[in-house]
Amino acid sequence: MTLDRSTLRWNAWGFAGHQEGFARADKLWAFLADALKTGALPQTPAKTLAESTLPSSRLAFGDLAAFQEAGCEVGVSPEDRAFHARGDSYRDLLDLRAGKLDPAPDAIAYPKSAEACQRAIELAARMDLAVVPFGGGTSVVGGVTPLTGSHRGVIMIDTTKLNALIAVDRTSLRATAEAGIYGPFLEAKLNAEGVTLGHYPQSFEFSTLGGWVAARGAGQQSNRYGKAEDWLVSAKLATPKGTWRTEDFPASAAGPRLTDLVAGSEGTLGLITEATFAVHERPTARDYRAFLFHSFEEGRAAVRAIVQAEIPVASLRLSDEDETHFFGALSRLTNPPKAMHKVQDAYLKLRGFGGAKCALIAGAEGDAELVAYARTRIADIAGKHGGMGVGTSPAKSWLKGRFHGPYLRDPLMDRGLGVDTLETAAAWADIPKLYTAVRSALLDAMKRVTPNGANGICLAHISHSYHDGASLYFTYLWPRATGGLQAEIAQWEAIKGAASDAIAANRGTISHHHGAGTDHAKWMAAEKGPEAMNVLRALKAELDPTGIMNPGKLGL
Amino acid sequence: MTLDRSTLRWNAWGFAGHQEGFARADKLWAFLADALKTGALPQTPAKTLAESTLPSSRLAFGDLAAFQEAGCEVGVSPEDRAFHARGDSYRDLLDLRAGKLDPAPDAIAYPKSAEACQRAIELAARMDLAVVPFGGGTSVVGGVTPLTGSHRGVIMIDTTKLNALIAVDRTSLRATAEAGIYGPFLEAKLNAEGVTLGHYPQSFEFSTLGGWVAARGAGQQSNRYGKAEDWLVSAKLATPKGTWRTEDFPASAAGPRLTDLVAGSEGTLGLITEATFAVHERPTARDYRAFLFHSFEEGRAAVRAIVQAEIPVASLRLSDEDETHFFGALSRLTNPPKAMHKVQDAYLKLRGFGGAKCALIAGAEGDAELVAYARTRIADIAGKHGGMGVGTSPAKSWLKGRFHGPYLRDPLMDRGLGVDTLETAAAWADIPKLYTAVRSALLDAMKRVTPNGANGICLAHISHSYHDGASLYFTYLWPRATGGLQAEIAQWEAIKGAASDAIAANRGTISHHHGAGTDHAKWMAAEKGPEAMNVLRALKAELDPTGIMNPGKLGL
Repeated sequence: MTLDRSTLRWNAWGFAGHQEGFARADKLWAFLADALKTGALPQTPAKTLAESTLPSSRLAFGDLAAFQEAGCEVGVSPEDRAFHARGDSYRDLLDLRAGKLDPAPDAIAYPKSAEACQRAIELAARMDLAVVPFGGGTSVVGGVTPLTGSHRGVIMIDTTKLNALIAVDRTSLRATAEAGIYGPFLEAKLNAEGVTLGHYPQSFEFSTLGGWVAARGAGQQSNRYGKAEDWLVSAKLATPKGTWRTEDFPASAAGPRLTDLVAGSEGTLGLITEATFAVHERPTARDYRAFLFHSFEEGRAAVRAIVQAEIPVASLRLSDEDETHFFGALSRLTNPPKAMHKVQDAYLKLRGFGGAKCALIAGAEGDAELVAYARTRIADIAGKHGGMGVGTSPAKSWLKGRFHGPYLRDPLMDRGLGVDTLETAAAWADIPKLYTAVRSALLDAMKRVTPNGANGICLAHISHSYHDGASLYFTYLWPRATGGLQAEIAQWEAIKGAASDAIAANRGTISHHHGAGTDHAKWMAAEKGPEAMNVLRALKAELDPTGIMNPGKLGL
Repeated sequence: MTLDRSTLRWNAWGFAGHQEGFARADKLWAFLADALKTGALPQTPAKTLAESTLPSSRLAFGDLAAFQEAGCEVGVSPEDRAFHARGDSYRDLLDLRAGKLDPAPDAIAYPKSAEACQRAIELAARMDLAVVPFGGGTSVVGGVTPLTGSHRGVIMIDTTKLNALIAVDRTSLRATAEAGIYGPFLEAKLNAEGVTLGHYPQSFEFSTLGGWVAARGAGQQSNRYGKAEDWLVSAKLATPKGTWRTEDFPASAAGPRLTDLVAGSEGTLGLITEATFAVHERPTARDYRAFLFHSFEEGRAAVRAIVQAEIPVASLRLSDEDETHFFGALSRLTNPPKAMHKVQDAYLKLRGFGGAKCALIAGAEGDAELVAYARTRIADIAGKHGGMGVGTSPAKSWLKGRFHGPYLRDPLMDRGLGVDTLETAAAWADIPKLYTAVRSALLDAMKRVTPNGANGICLAHISHSYHDGASLYFTYLWPRATGGLQAEIAQWEAIKGAASDAIAANRGTISHHHGAGTDHAKWMAAEKGPEAMNVLRALKAELDPTGIMNPGKLGL
């Protein structure tokens, strides 16, 4: 059992049937037009598939038959090729919405076993085809763009028929599953065995285990459950040099742990067909609640103090002043007004939170004693840093809508607005400067590339926090350029490039959990350094000597 | 300021002035002879340096002058070459005590800067010399054996003149130090800045930061402070291809984290000259206390429950029945008898701990609230698993003597006894079978290779525990073979080989924290698999194209 692809949009986020409701959409458009200092928002609908241009497949019938014989189903329908033509980055959506499906995969192979994956890769090598792995296809950095590199075509390997939960070890709290299993199916199967992986990225509903590992993803509860590289115990890879199962010890000193090379490899070294990962007993208690701080700086100090005191939190999510304000305003706009709001406002003013403020959502999960301990410590440390508890309901709202953010992008793009996100991470000491630099770079660039004196909006939050640093997640909106696809790409590149340069200049990583893909390829060498890029190339040359595995990603 | 090497023994553990006191040594020898079913213990003293054979150095005066010009002090005295001829493995001691110093390093270079390290390595490459990195030289797996590989000689690079603490970042809780700093000096300098690394391996007094990283070591409080691969943030390596500083982000999705390749690389990829690592605020509270369990199995269940409930412990150390009994008996033998013992015995019997039992030492460190929480949870979970708290004094004794174990080996070796340790790790589900198999293999092999119906003693404990598994640490004693060095080596190889085969056959890693060195090289390929060994070789070929870096280690 897996996701029925026919229920999904091919050129937009998620389920075709899902309407991310704006109770009072007209007010929203007016609010955004005002904030962006732009005129009335135009209608800018996406092209339909019928209006789009799909290049011909370069594969002959015999080629396809060979993949079938190797144990794969094969897809070549326009619908299938269009669905696999791009991931879900803003850059991808520009192409898709403009009906530009070139490059598209020449065919999609759906292996029915790990062995069929291995055979398909060997077949691709013999046929001189690039292999682009595809799980859920939710990459927001161009990780699944079907580039041919120096090869004659692209076979996309879609792993979603590999969706079995293979084993659960309740004693060692480990499980093994095939890589193409979608988040909700994996969690349901694990839950039936009493355990959870606890990995809830925003793409959870539409992304796969293998994709999480390949892109070094992070879930919203990563403080407790870890990032992909933390919960990954062992991987099985199909590579042009054969199948490789990595070590699976809880810890070892027998040389470097090569499993670590798999997380973040984005299909450039091989295709992940199975993963063994750490699981937890299902939590019997949970506590998520919100706090307000007078400033982002004050909130950051609290978040840092909480993680550095080793409090067993599951999640700490701190919005900056503008994000707190924006989502507060949005919520009041798009939901029916409540009499309570006035009372709330008065109370907040009384407590010194009348002006700018920042919201923190802090969560703990586990057994009752752990949650009680974490809750007490969080409240205590937040209080000592100037924070005020504002109860559980903001946290509940966040939890309820936490996978729905990406649904907002498509209706905004239908009304002449661009919206993108990017994220980075740095040591705590580097966070203030990095935050200011990236925010300024985004605002300046958006101002520069939007027409008629309009401006952009930039919102930010800390989504993941560590003993030695934190991630910063930016969401930014701007009025889209007019003048067609090339003008829009240039506009996006100017904004993205300015932010990426600011990250590189201020000791941030080009990505904390989205991956490198094609969008970040340009910044990889500066970040990793020449020696590291040589090491990556040597690794790739060993496992993929003819360079067929996902060309153009990771800057390789 | 660093350790004065002239205060150290060249062919035995630690400070020349340290006497690991046996208050009643005669009783100890009688007890061991009885337990091993051997006759009176013979005198088997080690040869002096004057009685030993040191091969001539293959380096000419001009060679040495070139290293001096490159910024290194150079040592070629017999004392210096003998001190660097071996590490501290049992196999090493057999050579040293027999006066066999071949192979010995042709010279020792002491670089005075990271740049001098880089120049020395490039010089070695031009001179076709193997480079063997040496920190404290406490490897117990042959990690510093000066093998020439296919080269014309060996230059050992001793890092201990690189011993500065470079920076402490109190905000990000990170510090950077030169690699050759010894444990006590590093901690003293960090403590003066209000922080701690908290890495306390048994070799703490005599091992260095760089060695800990190179061998992927673990300290006794690794539950809190992490293993070397956990606390390592970034490394600076001098390699034949140039100097490489690895990434230092708190987390990143920009490709695989290549810092992970440094931990466990044992000098085969390059020489670690600097490391940046996570530190903690100095703990303001500590609680270490002991529990008794009726069996190793019962104790293991408690340890597993504690770590899987995510209790913030610093250390959990669970001895098996024989280790608990042996150290109990030893303590009563070598210390003055106490009237209290009888009362204790009667009480234990009353509580069902009259026969076999297992001791757990559980510790927590941090702030007062964290320690209080951990202490309550540990006691609760231990109790639910049949454990009985026996107070803080056994834990205090352990803490007091925790670096002194290795001092016992030399006096035992002086009296015809062999003693060695090995360690492994596996998933919790694999631990029972692995424990039984390794223990049986050790006891069987010792029985087989000891003369006259004598037998060996095998003690074991869990020293490190994880969400998904644990380490097992074995200490074993046997009467040494007579007939000279070759017979003794054959005896040790038979014992070590039997245990290593049992580890390989039962899903254990050949080392949890000692490293691979030369002693485990034979088991590396089976453990890692052919694909992984190819990946390691490709990495080495990239960074060390002529294979000069620590040849013969890691099975490379």
